[in-house]
Amino acid sequence: MTETRVTKKNLERFICRVLSTNGLPEDDACTIAELMVTADLIGQDGHGVFRLAQYVKRLKAGGINPKPVFALAEEFPASAVLDGDNGMGHLVMNHATDIAVAKARQTGVAWVGSRNSNHAGPASLYAMKALCEDMIGLYVAVGSANHMPPWGGTDMLLSTNPIAVAIPAAERPPIVLDMATTVAAYGKVKTAAQRGEMMPEGWMIDRQGNPLLDPTKSAEGFLLPIGGPKGYGLSLVFGILAGVLNGAAFGRDVVDFNADSQSKTNTGQFILMLNIAAFTDPAAFRSSIDDVWDEMKSSQRLPGIAEIRLPGERLDATLKDRSVNGIPLPAALLAVLDDLADANGVARLERQAAPA
Amino acid sequence: MTETRVTKKNLERFICRVLSTNGLPEDDACTIAELMVTADLIGQDGHGVFRLAQYVKRLKAGGINPKPVFALAEEFPASAVLDGDNGMGHLVMNHATDIAVAKARQTGVAWVGSRNSNHAGPASLYAMKALCEDMIGLYVAVGSANHMPPWGGTDMLLSTNPIAVAIPAAERPPIVLDMATTVAAYGKVKTAAQRGEMMPEGWMIDRQGNPLLDPTKSAEGFLLPIGGPKGYGLSLVFGILAGVLNGAAFGRDVVDFNADSQSKTNTGQFILMLNIAAFTDPAAFRSSIDDVWDEMKSSQRLPGIAEIRLPGERLDATLKDRSVNGIPLPAALLAVLDDLADANGVARLERQAAPA
Repeated sequence: MTETRVTKKNLERFICRVLSTNGLPEDDACTIAELMVTADLIGQDGHGVFRLAQYVKRLKAGGINPKPVFALAEEFPASAVLDGDNGMGHLVMNHATDIAVAKARQTGVAWVGSRNSNHAGPASLYAMKALCEDMIGLYVAVGSANHMPPWGGTDMLLSTNPIAVAIPAAERPPIVLDMATTVAAYGKVKTAAQRGEMMPEGWMIDRQGNPLLDPTKSAEGFLLPIGGPKGYGLSLVFGILAGVLNGAAFGRDVVDFNADSQSKTNTGQFILMLNIAAFTDPAAFRSSIDDVWDEMKSSQRLPGIAEIRLPGERLDATLKDRSVNGIPLPAALLAVLDDLADANGVARLERQAAPA
Repeated sequence: MTETRVTKKNLERFICRVLSTNGLPEDDACTIAELMVTADLIGQDGHGVFRLAQYVKRLKAGGINPKPVFALAEEFPASAVLDGDNGMGHLVMNHATDIAVAKARQTGVAWVGSRNSNHAGPASLYAMKALCEDMIGLYVAVGSANHMPPWGGTDMLLSTNPIAVAIPAAERPPIVLDMATTVAAYGKVKTAAQRGEMMPEGWMIDRQGNPLLDPTKSAEGFLLPIGGPKGYGLSLVFGILAGVLNGAAFGRDVVDFNADSQSKTNTGQFILMLNIAAFTDPAAFRSSIDDVWDEMKSSQRLPGIAEIRLPGERLDATLKDRSVNGIPLPAALLAVLDDLADANGVARLERQAAPA
């Protein structure tokens, strides 16, 4: 597949003009653009500009409010529930994260949940905002479509409900865990289908409980949780914490945002911020995380294993590469973005890959 | 295997007199006894009175301080680090949980970590203290022995690092998730060895990466994480949050408390309390959790599945049975407890099973 590299700045400007022309205030459009491009920079290709056409479809169909008015539905010294007024999820959770950082600075820890939010991109995006604040970030979302039944069941009542945790180091890359509670995220199933590949056993089963290996038949089955009933339990409690507790959608109320562009999703998420200074000296802590890195890295290895990896290691390498060399976009996606530009009457995405 | 049922009260009194005669103040001994018996009541048989002989061994060897003086090493409005002065882990985390509840009442959410703590029984014990407070509890511990390498490695640098989350319902039992980040907890391996059973594939591998099925050879291999690299990532970040952040042991510094009764373990844990009233009306929330229960329960089922279960359902049934009918103890454990009584010069555990 041919790929073209585009610069961070060009991609941000492109997303910003597409969103602006669809009714978002320019400041908001640019905030979202920056977050979406960060998703691409850190290698979360399924959660960055890839989603732009879908967001525009929802904006045009009235499924997302382009000019939300945020309000704190509940507030305590260390917690809050932010009502996102059905705005873009990136805006809602970006604001929620800012509130959590400000509160945790005072209180040591803070937890801010959202209701009436929307798909906000990859979970790591908000957890990682902790890294420049000498904080640890933890983010959980109710996924934007149900792909999993309760353990032993066949009704799809649960989503992949991902968790992200970001922990700053000193000289080493930060530790960033970003994982679905299912063995495979649904995006991986879509990617396998696009590539014409079979899925490994363990990703999905069909309604008889047999392994489902053909990703083009994914509608006939469902994703499997990690660790069987344990992953089911994690998805359930994360869904309650990010959804039910905030008055957001959970279970049968979750709208499949792939299939329905008009209905309000009432997506729920939460961000937790831990102020490291409330626990220990931040510089000493960061240095301890370097030690953890080195200790894990230097473990003896199983036969055939070239290297021990830490969560966030690939993300960091991708971020460094793409910040310098640009973001690779496949030809098919570029064609979609050109069509989107033409349909919305804005300039197409500039191609030159040289760093700005 | 023959079993005898003993009453809650008799078991508490027995544990209390064994601990008292080993130097603990009677109040502390009774607090610990109550927590240990609760572990047995909720069916966490590997974490209740089963551990008493081991605790006594550590107390006699000087590995645990019978009269700790607790101090808050750090404190912010919504967070604290409790230094347990190498006291019994139950006492440390019981106190930490009380602090977290009091803080969350004011601030909405609170996070209290521990250092210089010890093995504190099952994770659910402390998370469940939320249930009577209209709160949600979340507990994580650094396990008391390393049983897992980083993904792809062979050096055992990580423990099973369990998580527990307890969420109150109205009429239904509470949702209580209590899980190791490994496919099997190490206690299950020990149980299989005692019973002369083989382990299923997927629990452990040997140093060549091959499945290890014979539990008597568990020293030749290690536990596998749930979801492969995902469970490794969870164990790692939970270990950092419960260990490194609190100045407690992690990685190579973790003392194997099964093999070593003298060395201070510097165990780390944390408890997070969410005050439901800071998010929504607690009664309405509890009622929503009933709805979640009913929704999951009523899912269509895979062929051969008789019933959908919720996390905490078996725990609740066990608690109700044992509270009325007594706690079943196998003959082998009763013999150990009798020996312990004789060696410590205290009265043996009373056998009659009738409810007090």
